[in-house]
Amino acid sequence: MTMKLSILLGAAGVVGAVLLSGAVATMAQPAALSDTAQFDAQGRLIPPTDYRDWVFLSSGIDMSYSEGAAVAPADTHTFDNVFAPRAAYAAFKRDGKWPNGTVLILENRGGVSKGSINKRGAFQSGLPTGMEAHVKDEARFKGGWGFFGGLASGKPAPMIPYAATCYACHQQHAAADTTFVQFYPILLPVATERGTLSAAYLAEIKPEPATPAPHP
Amino acid sequence: MTMKLSILLGAAGVVGAVLLSGAVATMAQPAALSDTAQFDAQGRLIPPTDYRDWVFLSSGIDMSYSEGAAVAPADTHTFDNVFAPRAAYAAFKRDGKWPNGTVLILENRGGVSKGSINKRGAFQSGLPTGMEAHVKDEARFKGGWGFFGGLASGKPAPMIPYAATCYACHQQHAAADTTFVQFYPILLPVATERGTLSAAYLAEIKPEPATPAPHP
Repeated sequence: MTMKLSILLGAAGVVGAVLLSGAVATMAQPAALSDTAQFDAQGRLIPPTDYRDWVFLSSGIDMSYSEGAAVAPADTHTFDNVFAPRAAYAAFKRDGKWPNGTVLILENRGGVSKGSINKRGAFQSGLPTGMEAHVKDEARFKGGWGFFGGLASGKPAPMIPYAATCYACHQQHAAADTTFVQFYPILLPVATERGTLSAAYLAEIKPEPATPAPHP
Repeated sequence: MTMKLSILLGAAGVVGAVLLSGAVATMAQPAALSDTAQFDAQGRLIPPTDYRDWVFLSSGIDMSYSEGAAVAPADTHTFDNVFAPRAAYAAFKRDGKWPNGTVLILENRGGVSKGSINKRGAFQSGLPTGMEAHVKDEARFKGGWGFFGGLASGKPAPMIPYAATCYACHQQHAAADTTFVQFYPILLPVATERGTLSAAYLAEIKPEPATPAPHP
């Protein structure tokens, strides 16, 4: 996987549906069903085809965790849109964490500034330029979550190896249940209220200790 | 209404649910129901409370139709997220136009660049900073559509007067059915295929005629 992919995966965690993990492999079908993480016989994730009907968590533009990342040419942007299955979203609103089997989808679309009568800012245009998934399955994945990339092809994709930076980054920085809820303004208040914010995130947002007054 | 509002309404048309228009007023309830344009006895639109569960059409950032618009301070951005009721979205995918009664919701959220581990670009943060609606009701509205602003308050809002620039702008520039489908990449191919692109939009995207070769 490329650095760009790990950034995207880090930038917007991705999760899924409500399956009993033991039944996943035997339930795999060529066509993905709504709200259900589907794997083929080789354990590859089958890209869901109806994720645009799911619940929209949020979008960002040109997000990067690296200060020195290359800047794209002017007027070239990448939006990321994140979607959760309806049942998984309802469970998160109730519990402040994702049910086992959840699949979150991160979709990228190009952003353009000039187009039709628009003069400034950016709007999304064209086909998806990338798609990744973050899947919760505590029996299947070490740490409970697996990442999958390259799904815009529509073809099943193998799990991204655990050595990829996305795993460590989500463990170290994600606000709730290994997902970047700090970037989803409709879910951050839920996790706050349910008390499911991670210790790492709470430490990150802790105000700096006041500088002690110098001796008089 | 302010210029900013008309820009936002122009930037992302907004529409709603599947009601018989004659029945709208009598069906009005204090609490808005899913997928249903609800009006109070004074004809004010009751803001839907569950639009975040609807279908996400697209998002943009800092969009403006004015070349000379004031630029926001660095690191201050406004995202717009547009949502359609599930039944209206299904009808558009079938017909390339919106059913009578459709309500589209445009939600604004602030965007920040630095936050958590993000260093570049922008992500959405905080509560909605604005909410507007675009409602199709051929019996109720001249031209078939009405705009409503100031809905983030959660209180019913009167129709924006027809003299507002949003009405003329949508009539003159919207790609399909008076809505800015050119900014919704999941719907533009539908309108193209169904043959519902407006004459004005088709003229706008028509290639410039080739310059005739000079006489030899």
